[in-house]
Amino acid sequence: MTAHNANAAAEIRALIDDRAKAIRAKDVEGSTAGYAPDVLLFDVVSPLRYVGRDAVRKRLAEWFSSFEGPLGFEQRDLGIRAQHDVAFVHSLNRVTATTIDGTKLDMWWRATVCWRRTGGTWRITHEHASVPFDAASGHASLGLKP
Amino acid sequence: MTAHNANAAAEIRALIDDRAKAIRAKDVEGSTAGYAPDVLLFDVVSPLRYVGRDAVRKRLAEWFSSFEGPLGFEQRDLGIRAQHDVAFVHSLNRVTATTIDGTKLDMWWRATVCWRRTGGTWRITHEHASVPFDAASGHASLGLKP
Repeated sequence: MTAHNANAAAEIRALIDDRAKAIRAKDVEGSTAGYAPDVLLFDVVSPLRYVGRDAVRKRLAEWFSSFEGPLGFEQRDLGIRAQHDVAFVHSLNRVTATTIDGTKLDMWWRATVCWRRTGGTWRITHEHASVPFDAASGHASLGLKP
Repeated sequence: MTAHNANAAAEIRALIDDRAKAIRAKDVEGSTAGYAPDVLLFDVVSPLRYVGRDAVRKRLAEWFSSFEGPLGFEQRDLGIRAQHDVAFVHSLNRVTATTIDGTKLDMWWRATVCWRRTGGTWRITHEHASVPFDAASGHASLGLKP
């Protein structure tokens, strides 16, 4: 990896850390500042896709408001591949929280986030977040741990 | 996009088309030729992840052998972002087939495929395939259509 590309990876890493802090603070603006206006999101729950930053903001605001009290957010096995103005990142993410109806949530999911740098600014143009499902039962596998 | 990058996108496009043909032919070797030896796969069904081309080959061979007769495979809304030696691709994929127990399958899923070129050869280093789930029921949403 050249110094230029190592630098790109470090920039992406800093953006990921900032975003994680914003998620823990349930800060919708901070969590979605990095999205491109025309971002394509494949989210953990239905529908099939969301298109555009405004739709993603709305979805995230709903998600944050479904929790009471602190929101734990962690990322592990982070892989970053950045070259020039394109980057992709994969990780396993975990949320620990209590929903407003009192249910304890502790869930891991898979995340792939694709970035593009335009005019010197990195933006997320595509994100894919999911849990697999159990082929026998058809249920989402919400209890998996890495 | 520079000519170099347009060319990279065209190369990726050709590899995607070749792979689609191999999938329709239930050709395990052809379908997995593009994977890097250490590929990380987040698949539609559990477990959380597969690591390595051998694991992906085994998984795909099982999937192909679960069908009787022709396997329909289609990709739409293909987005390709390629620059120098890094590329990512997203699409909505569809399979139409009959399982060995006679069940008709017609399913769409979301796919994100991340590529890296090493020594002149493009390889898939990461793939993420999923369906979302319905938050109310906990069931995988297998009937969604774009």
